[in-house]
Amino acid sequence: MSLHYLVIHGPNLNLLGTREPAVYGSDTLQDIKRRLESWADNAGIGLRIIQSNHEGEIIDAIHQAREWAAGIVINPGAYTHYSYAIRDAIAGVALPTIEVHLSNIHAREGFRRRSVIAAVCRGQICGLGWLGYRLALEALVHVQREQTDRQQT
Amino acid sequence: MSLHYLVIHGPNLNLLGTREPAVYGSDTLQDIKRRLESWADNAGIGLRIIQSNHEGEIIDAIHQAREWAAGIVINPGAYTHYSYAIRDAIAGVALPTIEVHLSNIHAREGFRRRSVIAAVCRGQICGLGWLGYRLALEALVHVQREQTDRQQT
Amino acid sequence: MSLHYLVIHGPNLNLLGTREPAVYGSDTLQDIKRRLESWADNAGIGLRIIQSNHEGEIIDAIHQAREWAAGIVINPGAYTHYSYAIRDAIAGVALPTIEVHLSNIHAREGFRRRSVIAAVCRGQICGLGWLGYRLALEALVHVQREQTDRQQT
Amino acid sequence: MSLHYLVIHGPNLNLLGTREPAVYGSDTLQDIKRRLESWADNAGIGLRIIQSNHEGEIIDAIHQAREWAAGIVINPGAYTHYSYAIRDAIAGVALPTIEVHLSNIHAREGFRRRSVIAAVCRGQICGLGWLGYRLALEALVHVQREQTDRQQT
Amino acid sequence: MSLHYLVIHGPNLNLLGTREPAVYGSDTLQDIKRRLESWADNAGIGLRIIQSNHEGEIIDAIHQAREWAAGIVINPGAYTHYSYAIRDAIAGVALPTIEVHLSNIHAREGFRRRSVIAAVCRGQICGLGWLGYRLALEALVHVQREQTDRQQT
Amino acid sequence: MSLHYLVIHGPNLNLLGTREPAVYGSDTLQDIKRRLESWADNAGIGLRIIQSNHEGEIIDAIHQAREWAAGIVINPGAYTHYSYAIRDAIAGVALPTIEVHLSNIHAREGFRRRSVIAAVCRGQICGLGWLGYRLALEALVHVQREQTDRQQT
Amino acid sequence: MSLHYLVIHGPNLNLLGTREPAVYGSDTLQDIKRRLESWADNAGIGLRIIQSNHEGEIIDAIHQAREWAAGIVINPGAYTHYSYAIRDAIAGVALPTIEVHLSNIHAREGFRRRSVIAAVCRGQICGLGWLGYRLALEALVHVQREQTDRQQT
Amino acid sequence: MSLHYLVIHGPNLNLLGTREPAVYGSDTLQDIKRRLESWADNAGIGLRIIQSNHEGEIIDAIHQAREWAAGIVINPGAYTHYSYAIRDAIAGVALPTIEVHLSNIHAREGFRRRSVIAAVCRGQICGLGWLGYRLALEALVHVQREQTDRQQT
Amino acid sequence: MSLHYLVIHGPNLNLLGTREPAVYGSDTLQDIKRRLESWADNAGIGLRIIQSNHEGEIIDAIHQAREWAAGIVINPGAYTHYSYAIRDAIAGVALPTIEVHLSNIHAREGFRRRSVIAAVCRGQICGLGWLGYRLALEALVHVQREQTDRQQT
Amino acid sequence: MSLHYLVIHGPNLNLLGTREPAVYGSDTLQDIKRRLESWADNAGIGLRIIQSNHEGEIIDAIHQAREWAAGIVINPGAYTHYSYAIRDAIAGVALPTIEVHLSNIHAREGFRRRSVIAAVCRGQICGLGWLGYRLALEALVHVQREQTDRQQT
Amino acid sequence: MSLHYLVIHGPNLNLLGTREPAVYGSDTLQDIKRRLESWADNAGIGLRIIQSNHEGEIIDAIHQAREWAAGIVINPGAYTHYSYAIRDAIAGVALPTIEVHLSNIHAREGFRRRSVIAAVCRGQICGLGWLGYRLALEALVHVQREQTDRQQT
Amino acid sequence: MSLHYLVIHGPNLNLLGTREPAVYGSDTLQDIKRRLESWADNAGIGLRIIQSNHEGEIIDAIHQAREWAAGIVINPGAYTHYSYAIRDAIAGVALPTIEVHLSNIHAREGFRRRSVIAAVCRGQICGLGWLGYRLALEALVHVQREQTDRQQT
Repeated sequence: MSLHYLVIHGPNLNLLGTREPAVYGSDTLQDIKRRLESWADNAGIGLRIIQSNHEGEIIDAIHQAREWAAGIVINPGAYTHYSYAIRDAIAGVALPTIEVHLSNIHAREGFRRRSVIAAVCRGQICGLGWLGYRLALEALVHVQREQTDRQQT
Repeated sequence: MSLHYLVIHGPNLNLLGTREPAVYGSDTLQDIKRRLESWADNAGIGLRIIQSNHEGEIIDAIHQAREWAAGIVINPGAYTHYSYAIRDAIAGVALPTIEVHLSNIHAREGFRRRSVIAAVCRGQICGLGWLGYRLALEALVHVQREQTDRQQT
Repeated sequence: MSLHYLVIHGPNLNLLGTREPAVYGSDTLQDIKRRLESWADNAGIGLRIIQSNHEGEIIDAIHQAREWAAGIVINPGAYTHYSYAIRDAIAGVALPTIEVHLSNIHAREGFRRRSVIAAVCRGQICGLGWLGYRLALEALVHVQREQTDRQQT
Repeated sequence: MSLHYLVIHGPNLNLLGTREPAVYGSDTLQDIKRRLESWADNAGIGLRIIQSNHEGEIIDAIHQAREWAAGIVINPGAYTHYSYAIRDAIAGVALPTIEVHLSNIHAREGFRRRSVIAAVCRGQICGLGWLGYRLALEALVHVQREQTDRQQT
Repeated sequence: MSLHYLVIHGPNLNLLGTREPAVYGSDTLQDIKRRLESWADNAGIGLRIIQSNHEGEIIDAIHQAREWAAGIVINPGAYTHYSYAIRDAIAGVALPTIEVHLSNIHAREGFRRRSVIAAVCRGQICGLGWLGYRLALEALVHVQREQTDRQQT
Repeated sequence: MSLHYLVIHGPNLNLLGTREPAVYGSDTLQDIKRRLESWADNAGIGLRIIQSNHEGEIIDAIHQAREWAAGIVINPGAYTHYSYAIRDAIAGVALPTIEVHLSNIHAREGFRRRSVIAAVCRGQICGLGWLGYRLALEALVHVQREQTDRQQT
Repeated sequence: MSLHYLVIHGPNLNLLGTREPAVYGSDTLQDIKRRLESWADNAGIGLRIIQSNHEGEIIDAIHQAREWAAGIVINPGAYTHYSYAIRDAIAGVALPTIEVHLSNIHAREGFRRRSVIAAVCRGQICGLGWLGYRLALEALVHVQREQTDRQQT
Repeated sequence: MSLHYLVIHGPNLNLLGTREPAVYGSDTLQDIKRRLESWADNAGIGLRIIQSNHEGEIIDAIHQAREWAAGIVINPGAYTHYSYAIRDAIAGVALPTIEVHLSNIHAREGFRRRSVIAAVCRGQICGLGWLGYRLALEALVHVQREQTDRQQT
Repeated sequence: MSLHYLVIHGPNLNLLGTREPAVYGSDTLQDIKRRLESWADNAGIGLRIIQSNHEGEIIDAIHQAREWAAGIVINPGAYTHYSYAIRDAIAGVALPTIEVHLSNIHAREGFRRRSVIAAVCRGQICGLGWLGYRLALEALVHVQREQTDRQQT
Repeated sequence: MSLHYLVIHGPNLNLLGTREPAVYGSDTLQDIKRRLESWADNAGIGLRIIQSNHEGEIIDAIHQAREWAAGIVINPGAYTHYSYAIRDAIAGVALPTIEVHLSNIHAREGFRRRSVIAAVCRGQICGLGWLGYRLALEALVHVQREQTDRQQT
Repeated sequence: MSLHYLVIHGPNLNLLGTREPAVYGSDTLQDIKRRLESWADNAGIGLRIIQSNHEGEIIDAIHQAREWAAGIVINPGAYTHYSYAIRDAIAGVALPTIEVHLSNIHAREGFRRRSVIAAVCRGQICGLGWLGYRLALEALVHVQREQTDRQQT
Repeated sequence: MSLHYLVIHGPNLNLLGTREPAVYGSDTLQDIKRRLESWADNAGIGLRIIQSNHEGEIIDAIHQAREWAAGIVINPGAYTHYSYAIRDAIAGVALPTIEVHLSNIHAREGFRRRSVIAAVCRGQICGLGWLGYRLALEALVHVQREQTDRQQT
């Protein structure tokens, strides 16, 4: 069975590599994309990777994922801290979802510690750079395989 | 005199019927639309019903309503809890507006109890399912008729 | 089947029409009573309408309603903001109850925004003047009819 | 010397046995009364047991207890959380008083954890069902006996 | 013109003289009554002095005062800190009202510093013992006389 | 025995009569001074009345009052809300002190409700205009006379 | 069937009798132990009574109790206010547990009012001195006997 | 060297002139645009002026400004109070940015006092009407000229 | 018509140029004075520029400005965060006033973000260094000229 | 080069498999240990895995890790929420550390959302069950390898 | 090299010995002065000791200390809790400064625990009576000598 | 008479000299021990110096000190911020105790400003490095000598 996942980069992540490199590193979004796709190819899974600065577009993409995706990896960027609408979208589609942050949000400004989204996700990974995305995908695949195994027995 | 009203369904309400039916019931947005239009036909008023996940589109729709609508019924979804921009839009167009919620927001997570929008509305109805929309429209028509009566005397 | 409902006006509502008319309008409680009874007659339902400034009397009335009423419409007045005892009474009798406020409590002093009672009600209507009571009754009847329909099928 | 105690059941406790049995059990207030009176008879002490939904009546009863009672056991129900007036009554009569709650108030809604009354009581027992009343009476008798012993030596 | 005023003693003030004399002094409510009536006789004004532990009775008394009183002096006792219902009653009858406390509420427990009632009164006097009532009456008479003078010129 | 009192007007009270007359009335500080002195002459007591915008000067004046005054009436103006230094001065000299405010501080901006000074005063009078000063002086004289009477018996 | 219970005295309770006797009385831990054991002998139940100042030892003891105890009485001392680890231990072993405090924690410093542990206990007893332990044991036995009775029918 | 600046008007500012004129004045956005362009022509600088109700569009515009603008003047409207996404966009492009508000946000509702954006701007101007934009542009030009001067020496 | 303005530098601004130059720059107060006076000469307006570390002196200066000034530019330094007395002085004299801060107070310690004074000013400028003063004066002149124009038509 | 890591299981994790399996799953700590060791063998790295209910032992273990470990994976259990001492230990030894939680702490009781430790870790993984440990180890190895690569070039 | 230090006693400390001796002891400021000067003579350092109730004078004295002092010992009295202006003065002159309190501010009213000044001092000593000043001077001399030693090597 | 004191170094202080030297300096705990012992020898007093990362061990040591010590100097490390158990231990043994911190806790993270222990100590010294311990010992000796002197007269 072939698995497909949606990876969402939220607002301002298109600036990656140029924006505050001391915080976010010098990898561009394109670099991360290539690494994830290469890993996905090896792992035999499909990825759709999007970036948007528009809260509404992110919600639309989550809704559409119900049609085709086995799970979602989302870095909601600053929407992490106030977008109850994205939270409701994730809860609404009920796909296994993991929230990822490049930097350690617990070691930055106070407002970055509060995620209004994490409570409706399966889990959260932060502070591990681009690797966080890959580990999140590993976890989703792992969950899926376990579930499939159970169903087959 | 013919009256027209704008009904706005905010983010994620397009998932209605499939999203957390224990909370929101099994009616789809289409079902609600039909019932409201049927009621409106009987009552001799016109309705324009929209749904959007985009905060900006909701604001645009409110602005445009100044041109044609006698009032607004809005279920701002999760934007209820943080969209000061929608609040300002409603205050700006100064049309009588009623906020509606399908579920009883007072019996759910703490953050759902706070509406940043209600203060600039005429009133708020929550917890009465799709009927809330119809009652809100009744109230707007009632207000309008009273006002017209006063002006004619 | 004949339906009967209890309508409770809480403290100070007996001053209606004379108290702060800019906020509460010039209708007296007697005016509202007449309109609701007239509507109820047409709708073929029975109403018992009481007003009390005494928290204990309101609780007693709610308890007794278990014997005869199909639901409750309550405007708890200022008790809205602190009477956990009325809250427990409503939760205890488990009748469908709707909280009504004449004015938009969200557009007034901060303390008026907090209802300790709403969480145990079916829903809440505010800001629509006396009409709010009638809409609440409509909703209760609607709920009851739906339930009856379900039981008959 | 014969000892008499006042036992006060606050608002909504008359619903006991029918109200939220999952929380409060299926014993009625009458059941509890019988058990306490039976225990009191054995222990050779007198009990006056009242229930009221009226804050003022509870205050009056506390005041009158100064004339005849050696102590008070009170379950203030929802008044626990806001009745500074009952607090002042207990502080004013200066009888040894124990606050009792049937359920474990620490395992329920946040507001139930705050007692404005406990600070002027001798102690508090919660979560032990009807037995809590009996243990509270045991404690009051114990205190009284110790005090009497001291006075006789 | 003869002036009449309502003086309200709230909950637990009937214990005065016996309750925590270190805080409230050894005067009984009867002592205070005599002194105020004696002063009122000299000043040529009428007083009606009541005490109640029942929030509802206090509200009723305030409502009735509209019929006959030129103003109100109220010591709301512990209701000071939570009775929004008494607050609404005072705002509703719109008589000049002064809040009085025997002790200095600012030098006691934290919760005693907050009055939910003071905002709708003309003023507040605290910490001056029974004299506070007399000074409050002086102030009400003063206000009344000034107003009468203005109307006569 | 002749009694002398210090009356302190805090910052900005020199603007009285011209500053926000809707809030503070049209009496000037000079008008109030004349009335208080006239009352004091009749009552046979001496007054020293000062006004200062300087926190340090007010503290100095309180310190010096230990040498000659039987009590203090202070309207600390805006220092009410943050001058712990004036608070310490009053606590330090241990003269009976009454805090006075012309307007009802409970009916204005939130920050005006908090007095850091009241806790170390004998009492507080607010909302009664210039009369508040006279009533405060009456109370101080009353306290003093009672104390003298007790000492003579 | 023989019943055994674990009684845990938390940090600093070894100082009992010498530490702040005004708050905690003059009984030593040894005195309390003797009284409880004497009561237990009469009641035909077994007790293991421990005291530790080490959070980890208390957790270990709770874990081991799963092997042999029918319930736990715990006075967590100051750990009451912050030891989420002890809370998790109690929740983890799922034995009926009652929290006991010698003094009335509601009448002391603010921080003592908050128990992070009570929510996972069956109930809480405070302010009744050493008797609190005995009453807690009575309650546990009562619960156990009721449960046994139910199982036998 | 020719300088170009981006001026961003956030949500609802398109209503200017018609929306709450008591707060925002009667100038339309078009009026302000003309005045700013006229001033810019005289000052020899270029302006691009946009308005959007869409958070995502504002973020996109800020990103694109990196390609051509020497600085940004932004009136984020209601997004001021919650758009951490716009904050991150400004921090990400690292152009000198000044936040402008037409009205004095400090003299309005509490929520308007908090800007989540100001911390990443060079400065903030509020309460000076349309002139605020022009002064902000003056400041940006001033900063730029000083910087250029330093680089040339 | 000749216009005169008062410029107030609050506490510690006399240290400018030597104090934390990383935050406040290397300009001395004298440098700023010269630049403002030079600009004022060109603009044909008069300036009186003062600096004081004494809250009382600042209040006195504001009061005196009523006699001669058309407006005030004030950098209240640290008094910004707590001097309700300066706030009342500005509200009392009712001259158009603009608050200026050299640094961006929103990008520094939390306490610096709160101004108790801004609410009674016309507006606020921060983060633009000495230029902020000049822009504030420009704005005051602008306001004055507009007002004069309106009066002449 | 051979890499060794310390894995720390905090308080109550020894109950795993039996404690609240609905929350924590049915794997025992032994099961997890086997899986991690098997993975480590394959990956060619060494693991030392400990569990302790004692805060002090955990601190000691972290200190000793300076001598031999290349990094730490820690699940601090309930200490997560208050052990500033463990936080200081991690900051003190300055080894790359990742905090892991089996369950999604953001979807549980409010107090579980606050980690006082995360701010001094490299990152945090939660909600992914035992897999979270393995992913954390992968991340530590990845970090180490990158660092080694950099040093070799 | 001869060292000179400034010792500042803040508001109300001139009352020492007479003010609340239970809290502050019976030493007068003169007593403390003599002891410090005697110690300073022995230690071969110079002291200038001032007391002021005026915030502005304290700031002026701190500023002037830049000219002659090697460090400052300050007991800011009640200004400790709100004088951000004194804080800025200390930060501005950048002399090593130690904050001293006679009493243990942590064991008194809540507001006394917060120092807005301590963050810009080298350290703080409280609760050790007059000795605290001497120890603070010892510490300043120690710091100075160490620094001198370093410079000479 | 020979005096002996207990010096307690709390968690992580064994890392001193290697842990965050920018904050804590490069002295090791051994260096500090030597200096304190050398000073103690000269002063003719005995010291017992311990370090522990275990909260329970610190409590045990405080308890044992009752047998032999004249006072305690404690640096509770991170336990400062939450160990109510250590607080109770200090209150329980009632030895004069001084809390010491090497760094200025007021100039670091917010949580470091709150000591739950200081309220039961004689005083607190922070920010003066190792010297703080010596000054604390000086203060304890001073207190002891004064007390001895008083007893001998």
